[in-house]
Amino acid sequence: MLEEEPRLNAFGGEFITSDAWVLVYRDRRRRWLVRPKDTPKLHTHLGILDVSNIVGKEYGITATTTLGDELTILRPTIEDLVMKLARKTQVIYPKDLGLIALKLGVHAGSRVVETGTGSGATTALMAYLVQPSGMVYTYDINPEFQEVAKKNIERLGLSDFVTFKVGDAKSGFAESGMDAGILDVGDPWEVVESMRKSLKSSAPMAAVTPTTNQAEKLVAKMKEEGFVNVETMEILLRHLEARVGMTRPSNIMVGHTAYLTFGRTTVGPRQSS
Amino acid sequence: MLEEEPRLNAFGGEFITSDAWVLVYRDRRRRWLVRPKDTPKLHTHLGILDVSNIVGKEYGITATTTLGDELTILRPTIEDLVMKLARKTQVIYPKDLGLIALKLGVHAGSRVVETGTGSGATTALMAYLVQPSGMVYTYDINPEFQEVAKKNIERLGLSDFVTFKVGDAKSGFAESGMDAGILDVGDPWEVVESMRKSLKSSAPMAAVTPTTNQAEKLVAKMKEEGFVNVETMEILLRHLEARVGMTRPSNIMVGHTAYLTFGRTTVGPRQSS
Amino acid sequence: MLEEEPRLNAFGGEFITSDAWVLVYRDRRRRWLVRPKDTPKLHTHLGILDVSNIVGKEYGITATTTLGDELTILRPTIEDLVMKLARKTQVIYPKDLGLIALKLGVHAGSRVVETGTGSGATTALMAYLVQPSGMVYTYDINPEFQEVAKKNIERLGLSDFVTFKVGDAKSGFAESGMDAGILDVGDPWEVVESMRKSLKSSAPMAAVTPTTNQAEKLVAKMKEEGFVNVETMEILLRHLEARVGMTRPSNIMVGHTAYLTFGRTTVGPRQSS
Amino acid sequence: MLEEEPRLNAFGGEFITSDAWVLVYRDRRRRWLVRPKDTPKLHTHLGILDVSNIVGKEYGITATTTLGDELTILRPTIEDLVMKLARKTQVIYPKDLGLIALKLGVHAGSRVVETGTGSGATTALMAYLVQPSGMVYTYDINPEFQEVAKKNIERLGLSDFVTFKVGDAKSGFAESGMDAGILDVGDPWEVVESMRKSLKSSAPMAAVTPTTNQAEKLVAKMKEEGFVNVETMEILLRHLEARVGMTRPSNIMVGHTAYLTFGRTTVGPRQSS
Repeated sequence: MLEEEPRLNAFGGEFITSDAWVLVYRDRRRRWLVRPKDTPKLHTHLGILDVSNIVGKEYGITATTTLGDELTILRPTIEDLVMKLARKTQVIYPKDLGLIALKLGVHAGSRVVETGTGSGATTALMAYLVQPSGMVYTYDINPEFQEVAKKNIERLGLSDFVTFKVGDAKSGFAESGMDAGILDVGDPWEVVESMRKSLKSSAPMAAVTPTTNQAEKLVAKMKEEGFVNVETMEILLRHLEARVGMTRPSNIMVGHTAYLTFGRTTVGPRQSS
Repeated sequence: MLEEEPRLNAFGGEFITSDAWVLVYRDRRRRWLVRPKDTPKLHTHLGILDVSNIVGKEYGITATTTLGDELTILRPTIEDLVMKLARKTQVIYPKDLGLIALKLGVHAGSRVVETGTGSGATTALMAYLVQPSGMVYTYDINPEFQEVAKKNIERLGLSDFVTFKVGDAKSGFAESGMDAGILDVGDPWEVVESMRKSLKSSAPMAAVTPTTNQAEKLVAKMKEEGFVNVETMEILLRHLEARVGMTRPSNIMVGHTAYLTFGRTTVGPRQSS
Repeated sequence: MLEEEPRLNAFGGEFITSDAWVLVYRDRRRRWLVRPKDTPKLHTHLGILDVSNIVGKEYGITATTTLGDELTILRPTIEDLVMKLARKTQVIYPKDLGLIALKLGVHAGSRVVETGTGSGATTALMAYLVQPSGMVYTYDINPEFQEVAKKNIERLGLSDFVTFKVGDAKSGFAESGMDAGILDVGDPWEVVESMRKSLKSSAPMAAVTPTTNQAEKLVAKMKEEGFVNVETMEILLRHLEARVGMTRPSNIMVGHTAYLTFGRTTVGPRQSS
Repeated sequence: MLEEEPRLNAFGGEFITSDAWVLVYRDRRRRWLVRPKDTPKLHTHLGILDVSNIVGKEYGITATTTLGDELTILRPTIEDLVMKLARKTQVIYPKDLGLIALKLGVHAGSRVVETGTGSGATTALMAYLVQPSGMVYTYDINPEFQEVAKKNIERLGLSDFVTFKVGDAKSGFAESGMDAGILDVGDPWEVVESMRKSLKSSAPMAAVTPTTNQAEKLVAKMKEEGFVNVETMEILLRHLEARVGMTRPSNIMVGHTAYLTFGRTTVGPRQSS
């Protein structure tokens, strides 16, 4: 990082540039994330949108397709971008990521260690939050996965805040004194000891596991390694269709994504909850 | 702010100081948030803890009460601190705050406008996230509330990142070009127009309302004011008691805190969803 | 009904008859409800099943399709049959019906009044429960709906326990002294007074409404009409995929069907909850 | 049972008798279930109610305490009575019982086998539903439990429809050809084989287990024993506080009671789902 003042990435200023991300929005289910330089013409079932034509204009405008359909041109949020990445591999949802970020207290300057990298969705959010002075160290055993994630992070302009490492965290993280840690692997209990050693004392960690069996094993191992305040939880998100005189919850709902387990390291292993 | 390099608040370094916050932790329900200088002796039903004695020691240690009970001394997270503040007035929960922060994309440098201030719990989280270069502008009609909130924010060392304003946001926010906005008032629809004018184009806002009726009115008003991607949702959080061979969800659960409504401004009002 | 002892309908004895209902079951999503006399050959994407060939055999056997696929031949439960009917019109779910039946205390001999009939799904369950000596009086304003429902009830052999009435219950039910009542119409508050007059004193009623606004109006009207123990609730049902070592909640979940409102009549209107 | 025509128990006719159950109702949390002959005077914090004085009066009336408080005198439903029993031992909730009854198709004439009896709450509901011609066979290993349950069932006037058996169902039920079965024991997988043999072919069974581990083991065993349509689910019930202009879900909610597992027997064991 050579700049005197690190660039703060917020995905778009006031006016649209050729290499900025743009969220073309019709409604909750019809939305496209593109860059003018990559996608000068956006072909949709609502007609073709001349994306190159919106360069230099303000975010928030309405643009019209060749079929006369009106689309709103929005500045993507980190959520839009993370969800775009997440969609390609396993499921991590904003409802879960928001709570993880809060419970880990990740903010500017935080140093976060993570395994696995996966598609880089969680990595991207953490990098976004630790800028301009923090760092996310992300490990994955799979070099091809990391290549994909690296490209994703680059395309989001967040590379300065991510250190990619190919390797098995079971045998230890190279970093110590970390502020927070994230485990998103199939056998997180195998990495708990490494995580404890990598985190500074009293630092929080989070783990994401789809099954109750994983949560069970993980919690036992965390307690064995002296973690305290160990809690597992799940989040259910339901939309409310708020319409005048006919408000009702949405019929459609995601039933399960993952259990989230949290805990904090202590000095020396002990048995406690 | 006189410092060359703004101080980054992460609530505690490696070693405990006299004016640092300390979380004395026994289990999920028995926990105390104190500062050694304010509370040299902590009286609990588990005995008295000599808090002054832990100054200079490492976070994560175990300390023993006069009754021989072992308590863990933790570095509080922003969640610990926010929940401590929240407990005193109306209910805002981490599950909700985490999603709000994520959907608003609040991070270092963000400029956030908010009303009302309340106890300053949401304000504190936003201030924590926007440091070292952003600012939270928080309005409350009640000067006494703001005094309490101001003291809360000061005690957390986050005052550099909050501008307090006594006044009714219905008649407008003084700030414009804001990156994100939060409404936590009883009649948020009355402030939607002010919010739209204060936010930069395509910026996200969030509102917190306990009732379906409020969500209904708010959503109608937001659409009228040209907001798009308007969505209302609620989050249910349930603990899983993960214990080897006897894992089960927690019997106890919060049934409802609030509906969260999100949306983004556009250029010029239009009717859309 | 000529029999000395009314026939008790339980949808199938030990052996399959030509006019009995049969549930051809492969898995949760691939299942067919047929009668041998109507469907001698069942054409599925798993091959053709010779249904006529299973007549005289025992329920619970496995039958093989022309493509070699094994299907289980089950005796349908009232749930299978009700869901089959419900699928064709508006959504009533077993999770809701089970609680309604329990809270209304419907059992052999109960006299139940209901509007609207709809497809007859709720009617069918109530008729099943009130046999061999009770009666369900079901009103619908739409004669065509009632014709469909009447056929459905006939095909289930439950006609002896249902009295169909075409008419608007707002102007009153003809029956009085009813043990329990069910409202499943768009504007249930308009029928609350009729319901109170039709029910015996201290009798329970249930109403099904998709929106919060309907529940709000209904509850106000019920209290006005002297109902007590007025409660509105919703039920969420989630499947658990219980598999050795990899147990997790189902990803797919119905987010909302309807709010259920219950209450009991009293002697004379009063204001209370 | 000597009567020509079995008495149909619906807990109270039109007028209150000395040995009838009476629900004295103030609101959702203040309610008492008494019999005039047992409790001529009901002492509450709202004053004393002269219960003996309401004998001969109509259900649904309002009675006044010595402190001038008005209480409604209601005819208890089977739910009121079952919940009263359930409160004393382990937790079975109406939300769960309603679905169990529906999925098992229990109605007049059904023959149901159950273990364990516990307090007799589930037994009572099933007895209520199978009258006037069915029977519930309920097994418990604990003779003292069964004595309590027997008294409970007697007090509800449902003894004609329950056969109590002290014994361990693991070594088999004496009854065969049963229409439906219920398992509410800590190790239900140990009783699955007995249950299969007791049920008629293609008959449904239900099991209630608090933990995911129990559900896991149970499901595996049921599939091994040839059960099909094996499903585990949980039900969440949330109240809606429906008030004009301020409708919101209830803050208080039960997070978990039990997982419900259902399945149906087939002819001969096979491996299937």
